[in-house]
This record gives sequence, structure tokens and C-alpha cells, in this order.
Amino acid sequence: MSTKPSIPKGTRDFSPEEVAKRSYIMNTIRTQFQHFGFQPIETPSFENSSTLMGKYGEEGDRLIFKILNSGDYLRKVKDDAFAKADSTALTPQISEKALRYDLTVPFARYVVQHQNDIVFPFKRFQMQPVWRADRPQKGRFREFYQCDADVVGSDSLWQEVEFVQLYDAVFSTLKLEEVTIKMNNRKVLSGIAEVIGASDKLIDFTVALDKLDKIGEEGVTKEMLAKGITQEAIDKVASLFTLSGTFGDQLGTLKTLLADSETGMEGINELLFINDAIESLGLQTATLQLDVTLARGLNYYTGAIFEVSAPEGVKMGSIGGGGRYADLTGIFGLKDMSGVGISFGLDRIYLVIEELGLFPEEATEGVKVFFVNFGDQEAGYAMQAISKLRQAGISAELYPDAVTSNKQMKKQMTYANRRNIPFLVLAGKEEMDAKQYTLKNMAEGSQETVTIDELVAALK
Amino acid sequence: MSTKPSIPKGTRDFSPEEVAKRSYIMNTIRTQFQHFGFQPIETPSFENSSTLMGKYGEEGDRLIFKILNSGDYLRKVKDDAFAKADSTALTPQISEKALRYDLTVPFARYVVQHQNDIVFPFKRFQMQPVWRADRPQKGRFREFYQCDADVVGSDSLWQEVEFVQLYDAVFSTLKLEEVTIKMNNRKVLSGIAEVIGASDKLIDFTVALDKLDKIGEEGVTKEMLAKGITQEAIDKVASLFTLSGTFGDQLGTLKTLLADSETGMEGINELLFINDAIESLGLQTATLQLDVTLARGLNYYTGAIFEVSAPEGVKMGSIGGGGRYADLTGIFGLKDMSGVGISFGLDRIYLVIEELGLFPEEATEGVKVFFVNFGDQEAGYAMQAISKLRQAGISAELYPDAVTSNKQMKKQMTYANRRNIPFLVLAGKEEMDAKQYTLKNMAEGSQETVTIDELVAALK
Repeated sequence: MSTKPSIPKGTRDFSPEEVAKRSYIMNTIRTQFQHFGFQPIETPSFENSSTLMGKYGEEGDRLIFKILNSGDYLRKVKDDAFAKADSTALTPQISEKALRYDLTVPFARYVVQHQNDIVFPFKRFQMQPVWRADRPQKGRFREFYQCDADVVGSDSLWQEVEFVQLYDAVFSTLKLEEVTIKMNNRKVLSGIAEVIGASDKLIDFTVALDKLDKIGEEGVTKEMLAKGITQEAIDKVASLFTLSGTFGDQLGTLKTLLADSETGMEGINELLFINDAIESLGLQTATLQLDVTLARGLNYYTGAIFEVSAPEGVKMGSIGGGGRYADLTGIFGLKDMSGVGISFGLDRIYLVIEELGLFPEEATEGVKVFFVNFGDQEAGYAMQAISKLRQAGISAELYPDAVTSNKQMKKQMTYANRRNIPFLVLAGKEEMDAKQYTLKNMAEGSQETVTIDELVAALK
Repeated sequence: MSTKPSIPKGTRDFSPEEVAKRSYIMNTIRTQFQHFGFQPIETPSFENSSTLMGKYGEEGDRLIFKILNSGDYLRKVKDDAFAKADSTALTPQISEKALRYDLTVPFARYVVQHQNDIVFPFKRFQMQPVWRADRPQKGRFREFYQCDADVVGSDSLWQEVEFVQLYDAVFSTLKLEEVTIKMNNRKVLSGIAEVIGASDKLIDFTVALDKLDKIGEEGVTKEMLAKGITQEAIDKVASLFTLSGTFGDQLGTLKTLLADSETGMEGINELLFINDAIESLGLQTATLQLDVTLARGLNYYTGAIFEVSAPEGVKMGSIGGGGRYADLTGIFGLKDMSGVGISFGLDRIYLVIEELGLFPEEATEGVKVFFVNFGDQEAGYAMQAISKLRQAGISAELYPDAVTSNKQMKKQMTYANRRNIPFLVLAGKEEMDAKQYTLKNMAEGSQETVTIDELVAALK
């Protein structure tokens, strides 16, 4: 076994520094979730296949990791599945469980299963890994964390207001300032499609409109025509191409455009309510923007749609997104439960913070003080101080092996250096006799001789 | 779809209260790991099957959850695997990945894979779920967390000393006082087997000796004889049956017994070193005990063996365990890396703390203050205070839907009650006009009218 071991493609090991940085982001998100009144739940890594299959479309079904049944799993398989060597037919016969593909479906399952114990509206958050058999590529992994907050059991738009504030609170706390929270409303999109008489072409229309930045009005028109949207229809919504100004200005244009669509006007009123509330309450560092081209999750969102982009100048897709789904738990038989939720893209947030150099030094601080090991007697003396420091909440460690030569001494110093330990204690025979410890500040190069209590006080 | 959804047997959903309690334990363990200088790593949930298979014995191989290959996984299968319907032969052809079975093997893999980036001795901790296709039963699950700390790359016995202290620190912080840390040494067990001339019967001998408490000296002797250990051999180690007194006393008896065994004497000296260090440094609330019958992990431990039992009176198996393995990374081709580590049994620790009523109230504290929603205008006014409170680090929430009737009011109060929210704010028209908020202390039943700044100050 001399080949170096490896891990499956699309998965990652996280080094101490990476875990520390990820924890910094996750702790910040968790703290804000809690400030906003969300409660944590956790669900199993694998669910019954029936819970997951058919919930993410055909593509999703393919990307779900299936777990092989234990034991002699072929015993119950019907013969023709072999004969045909038909993987699709065989899978349900040899696999009953599958790895979680996202946190939303398990959440819906949780709500339905525990509905009698839950106090509604239920504000839950969940931060756990999910797995997808996607083709791995830069920034896309087969195992990654999702950080979701959702409320289920109320239609109130105050929740949308809160989610805008929550994004602002998290990114402001992370010093990731000037992110843009883009908002749209599914009802506005439906209204547009209605007005142009092409409700069946809503997705084609939105996809084309989304390219306005890149291919300009002419390009968009061309694409829409190619998709079978008439010139007449396009003319009707020409004002969308030049939509600009404040949130309010843009809403004004939309109001004129969608005056005849009841659904469209409903969407506009929802956007208006949320924007008014946010304007009156203010945001710390983020900006709320209307983006009529935003069509994320068009298949399931029924009201507000959110997406967060990194600060300008950072090339990165969205770092968060979410929206409202009128019927979250219907798939498991519990009707009329409206939900709204948002998600934070941990891996991308990590990359943005890294690129902007915004990880605070404290985030990756390791051990505070390192004790050189001069031999068993001295080590015992060192351990007295180390025990006291740890009980005072200061991280401390002793090099396990004793210095027996200059080379050994150098090895210990290298160890302390490479681990970036800021303080070093030398306690040899001399210090033991004097009941003292020599404390070195590595950055300043200074040193002082102190008692055990002074040592604790100095490092506290 | 009207059947209530469920989760796979042996897995669990964790409610907000359970997550909070689990987090309290895990955060305590994590903090102590860090105080002791351990660094966190994380490894993928699934590994290449070749990394895991063959590392846990035949039984282990069976209990590892295998992941079905994606896509048309039957395409490459050789025909005869079907013809024979041979699960064992088919598995490696349709599954290349498997869920982590423990944290030790992935750690060994990590060390070998990243050996050039690691500063040795490497003190790492890891707290992640593992999966085993065990038959579920009370307290045994198919998905559960392991919380491990290990050091690799040094033989120093100071590490064993530190692990005893670490157990003491964690359990003392959890107020789980008077746990017993039982210690043994593989070399002592080998020495005993050597002395009685039955090195090949070491396991039979230990298993029988382990029953001393239950079946007495006579029963143990009978079982040993049945296993083919001679009466003469048993007579030689009769003193083990009556081993008692302090750690030092017991070591004295062992010294006499094992005087002729070099390996045995080595084990005794190791135990002596650790016990002397712990006696001189002291423990906060735990007790260190010698237990010659402790044979946990006999197959892989080569030096110290640890096991922690819950405080007397609590019926529970071990709540922690560990030991030294001379060759941790050899399985992946990196020789001569001695490791020593311990593990905390999260689920059992949870049950013990629950049984003894030791979860502190703060551990499960949720939202601090709840705002009644009297309508959109009032809600907007409430949100001003809520935003300010959250920015001050105080968790606060608004009921999303407005009070429109007495019934609605009662619903909001029930919600606040069931969530155990200790403070409640009423801010209706009257308060808005006066720029005030009415703050109710739910436990005391008292209330006062305050400004927004006074509100923040009162709840801080």
C-alpha cells in the first residue's frame, strides 16, 4: 500500500485553518439566525428514498446519492432486472435510502412528521452538509454545507422584510459590506407574461430578459422573437428594457405596465410593502434592489424571490438566495402551509471573504502559549502552569518530547513558529528553583520572568 | 400521499431543544480541546471504499454503508455477478464510495495524504457524524457523532497525562462530577499472558477476568479452565483476583507478579509515570483508577487503554474511551507514527446529563423578547425596537400576523408561552404616540413603560 491515499472527487478535507475560517462564517450566520428568533433543527444525513425522489425533477433524481441496502441485498431482486442490466429498474430494489440533496425537502418532511409538536409559525434554521452527484468543477462540490433559515405557517410579508434585514445583518457582521440584495416577485413575472399574452412562455421570456446586461435590447428582442414571442408582445413591455432609477421609480413603471393584471399588481404591492418597510427601518451596509429579471427558482417560488450578489468588483455568482413557496409541505400531505426562506452560500462567501482579505486574525488564532519541554522534571513543573492557564480559559501546550540536544531545541522552536504560537515559556532548572517562568513574546522578541499567577494574568 | 413521512430506522431528527443541548455538550468539549492545543480538521462524509474496507474486521466491513455509483452503474458489471446473484461479489463493481465508519481511519488517511503540510506532533480534534449499519437498539444509532482528539507523531507519555486531564476538564465543566477514568496498559495484559504461559489466550483470559465483579473468583476460574487455561497458570495470577487499594498499591502487586516479564514491567512503568504526574498535578473532579480487566480495543491498542464510566448510580456503559496505537498510519504506508487518542460518547453523555438534570437553563434559552403584532403600522414601530435589540445582540421577534380579534391575541400569547420567551413587548397606538414600549416580565408578571433605549438597556 505505497500509493498515497486520496478522497473521492468533489469532496474536500478541511485543514485546521480552513475549519477555523468556515466556523467563523457559520458562527456569524448562526448568531444572527438566533438573534432573529430562528431555532435550530437537524435531520438525518440519509432519508428514505421515497422522501427525496421526485422532488427535484428528473435531473435532481439522477444527482441524488443512493445508499446500497445492507446484507445480501440481491436476495429480493426480481430476475428480469438482472437480465436487462437495467440500472434504473434495479436501483429501487437494492437501495432504500439516499443522502440528503438539500435542506428544504427534509425540512418539509420534518414539519409534517412533527406537526403536533411544533408551535407555528415555525422559524427554523439548519446548517448541515448536503450531497449531489454533480460533475465537480471550480466552486462546485459533491459535499457542501447549506445554511438555511425558513419560516413556515404564515403569509405575513414582515417575514420577507426580516429576511432582507437578516442578509444585511450577516453580511455587515462579516464586514462584507455593500452586497446587493436583489428582489423580485413571481407574481410580477406572471403579470408580465399575462400582459403580453404569453403565460406559457414565461421562462423563455425571463431567461432572455436576464441577458439584457450582456447582449443589450436588440439581442434580447432577437432571442425573444426566436422563442416565438411576438413583436407586438415585446413592444408592450419595451419599458422593461430601460427600467432604471430607484426601487420606487422602477415600481412606478411596472405599475403602468401591469395595471390590467391582478396578479401583477399583487406582486407590485408586495414589493412595495417590503421596500417601504426596509426604507423606513434602514439597512446597515447592504442595498436592496429591484431586479425584474431575477427568476431564480421559478419552478417553486410563488411570491418574493431573493438573490444576493457579492460587493462590486468581486467576480462571483450569487452568495445567497431564497423566496416564498405558497405550499411547502403539500408534497407530504400537509396543505396550505406557506413558507419563505433564504440560504447562505458558505463556500462562495468563504471565497469572497478570502479574496477581500476580510478574515479577522482572531478567526484563525490557535494556541496562545507554548512551553518548551526540557525533560520530565521540568515538564512536570511546566504542566502546573499549563493546567492553571487552561482552567483560566487560555489555550496552552507542552511539547511532548524533551530537549536533549540543540537540534531538538530547534525542532521545538520550529514547531511553535509554524503553528504561529504568539507566546513561549521557558522553564528550566533555574526557573524551577526560583519558582518562576520565563515568558517570551514572540512578535516583540521581549521576555520577562514571572510567577505562575503573573503568567496567568499576563496571558489573560 | 397521506401516509405520514418517516425517517430510516436508527436515525434521528433533532428538535430545537435537542440541538441546543447537544450543542452545549459539543461546545464544551470543543472549547477544552482548544484549550489543550488541539486543532480541528474535517474530512468528507464518504471515502473511497478502498480507504475503509478491511480496516475494521469482517464485521466492520459488513456494517459500512456503501454508496451506489451514479449513472448507469450496471454497464461495467461482469455478467457472472448477476448470474450468481452474489451480493458480495457485485458490491465492489457497483459501489466505489462508502460512508465514514469512524473518525480514526479517515484521520490516519488525512495524516498520510497531507503529511508534507502537517507540523508534527499533530494534535487534531474532529467532531463529525459516522454511520454504521448496526441493528438499531436503545442508545445505538445508525448515524451518530464522534468527538475525537488524537496526537500523532510522538511517544511521549505526557500525552497520556494530558488526556486524563482533558477528560477531567470536560466532565468537570459539564458539572458531571466524579466520573471514573479507568486506565490499563496493553503491555501489562501481555505481561500477564506471558507469565502464565498463555500468550495465545490473552483475550479469553481478559474477557473472563472482566467478569470478576459479576461472577466472582470461582466463576472466573471456571471460565478460564473451560477456555483451556491451566489451573497452574491461574494460580500464578491469583493475586489479580483480589487486587485492591490505591493505584500505587495495585501497581505494587502487579510488579511482583510481572517481575519476570520485560513487557509487563514496561507497562507498569508507563502506568506509574502517568499516575505520578496526575497525583502531583491533581484532578478537578474525576478519579483515575487502575483497572487491569480493562481490555477495550485490545486488537489495536499497544500501550495505554482508557475508559470513562459515568458517576456512580447512573446506569450507563462507558461515556468515553481511548488509548495508544503504536502504528496509526501504517495501514496507509506511513510507518512508525505512534498515536494516542480519546473519544467522547456524545449520546451517552447527553443521557447522563439529562438523567442527572445537569443541563443549565442557558443551554436551551431561545428568544429573549417577543413583540405582539397589532397591525402593520404598529409592527413597523415594533420593528424599529427589534432591529435595535438584535444589533445589540439580543434575540427578538415579532409575531408575523396581526391581532385582529381576541382569539388572535390569545394565539400570539400561546405562541410566546409555548416557546418560553421570558419577555414580551406591547406597542400599540398609545405607545407609538408616546414613543414608548410596554415591557412585560413573564415570570414576575410585572410590566413597565420604557423608551427604546431603556428597552435595550433593560434586556441587555
